[in-house]
Amino acid sequence: MLKSMGYGATSASEPLSLLNFERRTPGPTDVQIEILYCGVCHSDLHTARDEWHNTVYPVVPGHEIIGRVTAVGNEVARFKVGDLAGVGCMVDSCQHCQSCADGLEQYCENGFVGTYNGEEMHSGGMTYGGYANNIVVTEKFVLRISDKLDPAAAAPLLCAGITTWSPLRHWKVGKGQKVGIVGLGGLGHMGIKLAHALGAHVVLFTTSPDKREDAIRLGADEVVVSKNADEMEAHANSFDFILNTVAAAHDLDAFLVLLKREGTMTLVGAPSHPHPSPQVFNLIMKRRHLAGSLIGGIAETQEMLDFCAERGIASDIEIIPIQHINEAYERMLKSDVKYRFVIDMASLKQEQPA
Amino acid sequence: MLKSMGYGATSASEPLSLLNFERRTPGPTDVQIEILYCGVCHSDLHTARDEWHNTVYPVVPGHEIIGRVTAVGNEVARFKVGDLAGVGCMVDSCQHCQSCADGLEQYCENGFVGTYNGEEMHSGGMTYGGYANNIVVTEKFVLRISDKLDPAAAAPLLCAGITTWSPLRHWKVGKGQKVGIVGLGGLGHMGIKLAHALGAHVVLFTTSPDKREDAIRLGADEVVVSKNADEMEAHANSFDFILNTVAAAHDLDAFLVLLKREGTMTLVGAPSHPHPSPQVFNLIMKRRHLAGSLIGGIAETQEMLDFCAERGIASDIEIIPIQHINEAYERMLKSDVKYRFVIDMASLKQEQPA
Ligand SMILES: [Zn+2]
Ligand SMILES: [Zn+2]
Ligand SMILES: [Zn+2]
Ligand SMILES: [Zn+2]
Repeated sequence: MLKSMGYGATSASEPLSLLNFERRTPGPTDVQIEILYCGVCHSDLHTARDEWHNTVYPVVPGHEIIGRVTAVGNEVARFKVGDLAGVGCMVDSCQHCQSCADGLEQYCENGFVGTYNGEEMHSGGMTYGGYANNIVVTEKFVLRISDKLDPAAAAPLLCAGITTWSPLRHWKVGKGQKVGIVGLGGLGHMGIKLAHALGAHVVLFTTSPDKREDAIRLGADEVVVSKNADEMEAHANSFDFILNTVAAAHDLDAFLVLLKREGTMTLVGAPSHPHPSPQVFNLIMKRRHLAGSLIGGIAETQEMLDFCAERGIASDIEIIPIQHINEAYERMLKSDVKYRFVIDMASLKQEQPA
Repeated sequence: MLKSMGYGATSASEPLSLLNFERRTPGPTDVQIEILYCGVCHSDLHTARDEWHNTVYPVVPGHEIIGRVTAVGNEVARFKVGDLAGVGCMVDSCQHCQSCADGLEQYCENGFVGTYNGEEMHSGGMTYGGYANNIVVTEKFVLRISDKLDPAAAAPLLCAGITTWSPLRHWKVGKGQKVGIVGLGGLGHMGIKLAHALGAHVVLFTTSPDKREDAIRLGADEVVVSKNADEMEAHANSFDFILNTVAAAHDLDAFLVLLKREGTMTLVGAPSHPHPSPQVFNLIMKRRHLAGSLIGGIAETQEMLDFCAERGIASDIEIIPIQHINEAYERMLKSDVKYRFVIDMASLKQEQPA
């Protein structure tokens, strides 16, 4: 087994603290990575606190991982020691279902293996995430990271980036289209950057008028304060696509009526309390669609990373030492971050392994 | 003006009764039709009773109209006196918006003119529907009816038929696909027939086990009692498309989870009370779609009528005299009709015009 050290939770009520744990011994198809940076995602907090009621403790969160390859199995072809590498939300899937065959492992019919709090396919134990000094992942689920990318700012691309990229690509967002992004947080700020880079006319919807300037800087062409009925009304029936990144329950109808005929609003956040039921009338009258989207497949994650490297796109981040993770969670709950915390894993070296 | 006689409502609380009213004098592009048969749609009842709070009285319902052409304006090219003709839910639209240009007049950006309770574009008055001896409609909104079709059984194709045909075609239902139809009423029974004729494997969902035999006769390959959780579970993640014809509020999640990855459930009925809010999780996990669809355009209505004539498809009907319309409404509310009432307008001749 491989010895690891990281920060994790031992119960829903305890703050994260230093943990020593083991990972599987790297096999012939595995890539061993020394983690340099790990982004902090809302899912990390939900899982650490068992808010989805499926956490197996101890849990080590983190699925926006950038690191350097320190060892490769003898069947590994795409990576060598010293390469930059990334790991996102998934570390395995069945590899024999239609979704896996289609490169959409996030929809694996047999369930993908999450980077943390997942059932490890090799050892039978649990997976542990990226708030740690190292990780072992089968080559298929390891992403190549261009040297053109700042490794810290690239970390959030592995979850926030791909979660917005995948729907933008699936619903064919591009030039000549008017695209809405609802919510300016970790996901929303990537949604703006990527939709803008894909050539769309981007409108950011926010409840906070004071986010206007920042949204424009990130690439939005317009900003609409969603609580202002007149501003909203001016955009009725005009959007090709709306990417809704808000996980809190809210009125979906306010956005559905902004879609053109056959337009789609795609939800990428699942609220803990249901949204008010959308009016069927708003779907029927213009043959509109309400849809959902989950992260993205490995092939499209690589596509997105390469696109970002080419275009100089990354996340706006605030770097923290691992020792500040609990405080960061509290600030994240207040949306007090622009727009993603990233842990500098060098900070872990000052801790003493058991 | 053209004198007309029919059955209509003078208030929300009165039963339908004989009314004398006037229609516009036929103009150069108009087709004048003697109505032979008119289907009875749930919308007729909702409008007669002002259940959508938009009825202007007096109202003459009816938008599943089959008749014979009795006069044509001098610019009319596609019809001559003596032809069979049909009129559906629309009698006009702006003709200059994108939806009209696309042949999707039901989504006219300026609002189509309903066959009844609509604002007449020529006279400025209201439109009156098909529970009447005649109607005047601009040629563009008049459908050709093949002599191969039984005119009485063809009447419901003009609303129930096109309302199911349009989504089946738009979402490309055909051979090799597994398609669900939710609800076996006026719309559902046409949905089964049309999806079957398009080559799909058709599954009817019903709450009534005693509808099984009938559904199979109509063309369903399987029947699932939607209240039986085990039966439902056996179909999880297996449908390409589900056409949901049930207008009463019900649990959409029970059907959403039956869709394959990227599958769509399309609603064609708007409930007066909202459905329980669907779980976002069910949309996200397989990139599923919830959509709506409204009737169908004139070109696709003609396509559907020609398809039905070719394949010998029509509605299962119960013919009534106009004098039984109020009783028919009560029976319709109890789903006591297989599967559409059609008024034989010859029965109107025994009434005395004012
Ligand atoms: Zn995440
Ligand atoms: Zn799979
Ligand atoms: Zn109707
Ligand atoms: Zn129009």
